Amino acid sequence: MTDFAATRAAFDLPEGVVYLDGNSLGPLPQGAAERAATVLRDEWGRMLITAWNRAGWMAAPARVGARIGRLVGAAPGTITMGDTLSVKIFQALAAGLALRPGRRVVLSDSGNFPTDLYMAQGLLRMLRQGHELRIVPPEAVAGALSDEVAALLLTHVDYRTGRMHDMAGLTRAARDAGAVAIWDLAHSAGAVPVDLAGSGAEFAAGCTYKYLNGGPGAPAFIYVRPDLADTIEPALAGWLGHAAPFAFEPDYRPAPGVERMRVGTPPVLQMAVLDAALDVWDGVAMADIRARSVALSERFVAGVAAACPALTLASPPDPVARGSQVSFRHENGYAIIQALIARGVIGDFRAPDILRFGIAPLYVGTAEIDRAIDALAEVMARAAWDRPEFHARAAVT
Amino acid sequence: MTDFAATRAAFDLPEGVVYLDGNSLGPLPQGAAERAATVLRDEWGRMLITAWNRAGWMAAPARVGARIGRLVGAAPGTITMGDTLSVKIFQALAAGLALRPGRRVVLSDSGNFPTDLYMAQGLLRMLRQGHELRIVPPEAVAGALSDEVAALLLTHVDYRTGRMHDMAGLTRAARDAGAVAIWDLAHSAGAVPVDLAGSGAEFAAGCTYKYLNGGPGAPAFIYVRPDLADTIEPALAGWLGHAAPFAFEPDYRPAPGVERMRVGTPPVLQMAVLDAALDVWDGVAMADIRARSVALSERFVAGVAAACPALTLASPPDPVARGSQVSFRHENGYAIIQALIARGVIGDFRAPDILRFGIAPLYVGTAEIDRAIDALAEVMARAAWDRPEFHARAAVT
Repeated sequence: MTDFAATRAAFDLPEGVVYLDGNSLGPLPQGAAERAATVLRDEWGRMLITAWNRAGWMAAPARVGARIGRLVGAAPGTITMGDTLSVKIFQALAAGLALRPGRRVVLSDSGNFPTDLYMAQGLLRMLRQGHELRIVPPEAVAGALSDEVAALLLTHVDYRTGRMHDMAGLTRAARDAGAVAIWDLAHSAGAVPVDLAGSGAEFAAGCTYKYLNGGPGAPAFIYVRPDLADTIEPALAGWLGHAAPFAFEPDYRPAPGVERMRVGTPPVLQMAVLDAALDVWDGVAMADIRARSVALSERFVAGVAAACPALTLASPPDPVARGSQVSFRHENGYAIIQALIARGVIGDFRAPDILRFGIAPLYVGTAEIDRAIDALAEVMARAAWDRPEFHARAAVT
Repeated sequence: MTDFAATRAAFDLPEGVVYLDGNSLGPLPQGAAERAATVLRDEWGRMLITAWNRAGWMAAPARVGARIGRLVGAAPGTITMGDTLSVKIFQALAAGLALRPGRRVVLSDSGNFPTDLYMAQGLLRMLRQGHELRIVPPEAVAGALSDEVAALLLTHVDYRTGRMHDMAGLTRAARDAGAVAIWDLAHSAGAVPVDLAGSGAEFAAGCTYKYLNGGPGAPAFIYVRPDLADTIEPALAGWLGHAAPFAFEPDYRPAPGVERMRVGTPPVLQMAVLDAALDVWDGVAMADIRARSVALSERFVAGVAAACPALTLASPPDPVARGSQVSFRHENGYAIIQALIARGVIGDFRAPDILRFGIAPLYVGTAEIDRAIDALAEVMARAAWDRPEFHARAAVT
């Protein structure tokens, strides 16, 4: 049984703050600053260049990837770390298209995070091979799969509403249609149970600064299904994805397995801070996270429904269809969030009218949920968002 | 006049170590650990999500880019930061090829760092538009420019020998041939004076963990000639290169200028450490760096020639044709470097037979050069690299 009092104590949160924005940037784990200081003073400072091997810097992407693998149902050796999620999506899509050379459609949905769509647009424009990015509503994805589709590119949990796709079902449908499946797990990793290996998905990628609390700019992860990893040709053929980086050969030869998806020098310091953040997950079961996330989310939905009738639930009412966030709609959403922040309850706003609240069970409990409901009720009852003094306070928070 | 005693004092180097490997990884600046702690505890820890604006995280790539611009002759607003050098080379080459749609040759040389060649190979293979990567010896580059060449892709200073290309002359020759010029400044930024704006080069990129001392995995920089920056279409069309990232529009619209070369979330922590490292450069003139680098390098070359006749100079003997490193060849190069490291003099080895010594005037002076010569002489005189006890000591260093 996961000890949530212990996980809560593992974070350094400001006194009096209820933090419901971990779906954007997770908070500071207690061990992070010390780990960073160790890397800087003892490793970089003392070992200098030799730290690449002596301190394990070069091997960190595989080691850290295996730790994340446990949380998303991927075996050791199937995930590596580096770059940003945008770059990892580009790598996955480029590899996916190369696996289906006769097909010209990339299928995605209007709930995808924009950078995934942008990266696809940039790739397809550059390829000039007649590809089309076809975007359909989330509920129309399954029906839009066809023998034209080379790759299905989806974000598992919608960043605005928290709506969660049926990953296993859609991956199966993609396979039946002959398409590869690429999953963006930005709002899934550390938020909901994911069974990457069981899904049969060809590729997945995610960021680590949301529910995994790796800090601002923490490296991304990428998963390649192991039976494909030795055959794909990396579009970003960097030297650290080479079979023998320090042989300095003139021609690219990809490394075995997913390590070929490495590109350049890994961000050692960010990787170390992420590694410290992953210590919090030792002993944490994703099933416990999910159970607590659902209980807290349901409490929040019910409380807000009772206290704030002017807020419309934007998330699916059924928790099974939801990730670990709850969103509402209101035309004054931005101002409401500012007034909430002024009261120490931090959520965020996404245009045009979405109020988002991330429910991260590692450090959010019933007390925080109840305080958030009370604060929201107070803001709504007094139309506090409409008063200039709240804007003034919010501006300095 | 640059105060080199002050710059030397700005680094935290291990007692007794002579560090001549700053061309691979620069040493720890005194201010780096404190800056990292501030970002972690005061910004991430206290401001949480609001730090993106309040702590200036979002604007850091442009701000830090301008600081690097001063060192490489680029105006503010023409450099942005992020990703790795490999990724930035990919972006520059993809953009360069799009500027010359009728041409099919990428010209490079055998002295280029392998990842630049690998990234080009990966890009051209993916494009399937009949491009060819043509690699010639460094001295044959000018003669190989022709109306087939779309892009000239060169590393300014050779990572093995320190041989330096005539950047102004080759850029002019490329322009005369109708090709775009892309310069990799990995071993130039902070090492030798560079006049990017004056050269007329279309693109340049570099890393910041060598002579700029930004730390392991520090972000790369990319320069785009300002008259082109508003017209190029980014291949890596990430959301932070979008004109309005937080509008979450479905279609990509590039940001004005070089900011469109941003891709995903910036590595905030690594950027802050780099920023602290750049503080050391305040008040430092690149002309002073160059004068001192040449004086120290000449002293090293002469001293080694006198004391170690078995070592063959691999660098150009004329300092005008050399960057800020000196290399020698010896068939036992690897073992010699290990024996040197065991004596506290850190250089490095590059296959098959190169001994490399980076001369970074910020923290290397005549005393360090003389100690390096003495240690090398001792190792060579006693054939110390051939004795098992030196290997045993080297293995734990």
